[in-house]
Amino acid sequence: MSEAALRVIDMLKPVLGDRLVTSGAVREHHSRDTSRLPPAMPDAVAFPQTEEEVQTIVRACAAHGVPVVPVGAGSSMEGHTIPIKGGISVSTREMNRILEVRPEDFIAVIQPGVTRKQLNAELRDTGLMFPVDPGADASLGGMASTRGSGTTAVRYGTMRENVMALRVVTPEGTAIRTGSRAKKSSTGYDLTHLFVGAEGTLGIITELTVRLHPIPEEVSSAICSFTSVRSAVEAVIATVQYGIPVARVEFLDEVAISGVNNYSKLALEVAPTLLFEFHGTPAWVAEQSRIAEEICTDQGGNGFRWSTDADERARLWQARHDLFWATKAIRPGCDLYTSDICVPISRLAESIVAAREDIDASTLTGQIVGHVGDGNYHTAYLIDPDSPADLAEAERLSDRLVERALAVGGTASGEHGIGIAKLKFMRREHGAAVDVMKRIKAALDPAGIMNPGKMGQEG
Amino acid sequence: MSEAALRVIDMLKPVLGDRLVTSGAVREHHSRDTSRLPPAMPDAVAFPQTEEEVQTIVRACAAHGVPVVPVGAGSSMEGHTIPIKGGISVSTREMNRILEVRPEDFIAVIQPGVTRKQLNAELRDTGLMFPVDPGADASLGGMASTRGSGTTAVRYGTMRENVMALRVVTPEGTAIRTGSRAKKSSTGYDLTHLFVGAEGTLGIITELTVRLHPIPEEVSSAICSFTSVRSAVEAVIATVQYGIPVARVEFLDEVAISGVNNYSKLALEVAPTLLFEFHGTPAWVAEQSRIAEEICTDQGGNGFRWSTDADERARLWQARHDLFWATKAIRPGCDLYTSDICVPISRLAESIVAAREDIDASTLTGQIVGHVGDGNYHTAYLIDPDSPADLAEAERLSDRLVERALAVGGTASGEHGIGIAKLKFMRREHGAAVDVMKRIKAALDPAGIMNPGKMGQEG
Repeated sequence: MSEAALRVIDMLKPVLGDRLVTSGAVREHHSRDTSRLPPAMPDAVAFPQTEEEVQTIVRACAAHGVPVVPVGAGSSMEGHTIPIKGGISVSTREMNRILEVRPEDFIAVIQPGVTRKQLNAELRDTGLMFPVDPGADASLGGMASTRGSGTTAVRYGTMRENVMALRVVTPEGTAIRTGSRAKKSSTGYDLTHLFVGAEGTLGIITELTVRLHPIPEEVSSAICSFTSVRSAVEAVIATVQYGIPVARVEFLDEVAISGVNNYSKLALEVAPTLLFEFHGTPAWVAEQSRIAEEICTDQGGNGFRWSTDADERARLWQARHDLFWATKAIRPGCDLYTSDICVPISRLAESIVAAREDIDASTLTGQIVGHVGDGNYHTAYLIDPDSPADLAEAERLSDRLVERALAVGGTASGEHGIGIAKLKFMRREHGAAVDVMKRIKAALDPAGIMNPGKMGQEG
Repeated sequence: MSEAALRVIDMLKPVLGDRLVTSGAVREHHSRDTSRLPPAMPDAVAFPQTEEEVQTIVRACAAHGVPVVPVGAGSSMEGHTIPIKGGISVSTREMNRILEVRPEDFIAVIQPGVTRKQLNAELRDTGLMFPVDPGADASLGGMASTRGSGTTAVRYGTMRENVMALRVVTPEGTAIRTGSRAKKSSTGYDLTHLFVGAEGTLGIITELTVRLHPIPEEVSSAICSFTSVRSAVEAVIATVQYGIPVARVEFLDEVAISGVNNYSKLALEVAPTLLFEFHGTPAWVAEQSRIAEEICTDQGGNGFRWSTDADERARLWQARHDLFWATKAIRPGCDLYTSDICVPISRLAESIVAAREDIDASTLTGQIVGHVGDGNYHTAYLIDPDSPADLAEAERLSDRLVERALAVGGTASGEHGIGIAKLKFMRREHGAAVDVMKRIKAALDPAGIMNPGKMGQEG
């Protein structure tokens, strides 16, 4: 441990007491995320409960040039929270209070450690919900920092659209507010959106004001299989062009469907498949389902089925819900190496087909599943966790995926973020704009202590 | 004219020829906007046609420390484009080409001088539209720079939600891209949203990629009057909570209705009035209208009428369409002094009531009209253009309006922007975040040449 880190720990111990931890187990736990990247130990882990404590921590670190790495629920996938330069990991776990819910204004004000399930449980009686759903029960602070999204983004937007205002402790320890409680504003630079997606490199989020949405009166689910990836994607485009506000539309390829058939004893047609969800009044949901059925059938879709009954809906979407374990069961003992890109939807079919061809030509098995309404999809390559060759092959496939996405005007990550793993694509994607990002980082964090070695410094 | 400006003009003349204008009339035209703020003359007005020409202009100005003031259609309302420190006004008038429309991707790529009407005319055959409608036929570059919106923002969002990607010439003359053609992305700082709303103080937008939306199959319009402002606002809140995706919902107060009755020979009840518009399939539009009718009636609304017939719809919304001229007719020869705030919708009724009381207690006549689904409304005070007393009173009323908005968590401007007129409220609204804005401005524009004296330097 550096002399500087020791001094910071000495300064913070009287303030945080047991909530500043230097034991091996807790530091070890904060040395990795869900990626397969090499771990790195923080010098200590702090568990502040208030914004003032966050300020104290940041000021102490700023005074001694010690890195500060904000951490939420730890579900990040690209190494975002790995403290590659040591320092203090600042966990928001104990900043998990829901401060205010204002149903008339469709907003909730929360601390950053609140998870999406916790927030939705609290909202149940209000008739409102927070729809952004990245799968994992992530913290809202983490989801904001990664600009996360998930299956519902096609209808309700990502964290970009659903964070209205923030409180942030800057890299020098100043607490600022960004945004307001007004639904729209034309005053000042949009700092809210600068911190959303900054991956903890510009400050620590200490409070979020998020948008809420009405819980739909009725929900219907639907499933349909297609003879080709292209016809499935064309059906999605036509549905959106028709003005149908699809709430979710998920794509599963043949490998995914086959895995689910085996794992869950289903008999789904092994073909490119779409799963839909529609939200609205009973009549409107029925109409949306009928229009989607017509469009899917026009595109050669087969066996379109839909239902508003909860049990039947669960059965229709069972393939999606069982997917993770079904995929792991394809090769017992394997790990899943996941990648994530987003392309213009007009290029989605060719992008998925090329990804499929890459997998088929490789030594690995892999599947493709996507939030296709947004042009966003994930590949999952099955690898032996002890095989460097498998890991190298998965990385090669993932790199090719990203390179093709960038070549058609897409992005290196739809929702998982840059972290460490995708820093190498920053300049390819953003060109000279990376230098503007670096200037902003240097202006806001002149000492370079906030999540150092990540976005804004490297890439 | 300064020595430096003369040198810049000498450098640019061979490049731009007739498109660098130093004549009095053109400079005079660029010395003001639609506000009543004191004019200031630019040293010259440039009309570039390409991004390269914009770069040449900016580099010449940067080399000599000469101000650069980007100008769109000139419809700004708070002094944004007044060149208070002289320099070169850069008009985007001749950068008005629609570069690409991609219906499958729901995007259009345009130069900044394209106006919203021009874009929608071009889109007509695609079944898509660009819905952001600030009233004036503004340029899209100007609308982005002001983070503009208008009547449809409640459904389709503002420029914040509808600009996907930009090309920008930075204050040092570098051309960068921000964003991508992918619908969502988790890579890098969100520079797109930093330039949207920056009012030309961080660079010149040279290209926009904007989101398109399906033209609705059916449109219905509705009108309903209420016994109080509060019951009208409660009806709007309940409609949104029900999950009705209102496309427009405009509020007109008694003075506005009375003015329209006189001007357009109508017999509308002189009461707080809501005008609705619904978009969707014929069945869904009918259901939305019926649900809204039920909610309005529950709130004591009177005489709810709706229609999908184009002529009847025009009659229902006639009050809104005639409003500007009807208001000016209240006091022949008068000017309208307009203000603009946005508050959390739960505070909207009390905010409008207080604004009304302020007007009633003043020497001026005024009306209130608002995009109430967003909590955004405008006051218009009738003033004698030659009366300094009237102007001072209008300013006093506007200041009180803003101060009350800030006191309840609102914003000093919902859609008109900061410009010069509202700089004095920046620190009141944003506190220490203004210092972060100033750091960003200084980092990106070290010479301070981009629209100097405005946001990011003052306030």
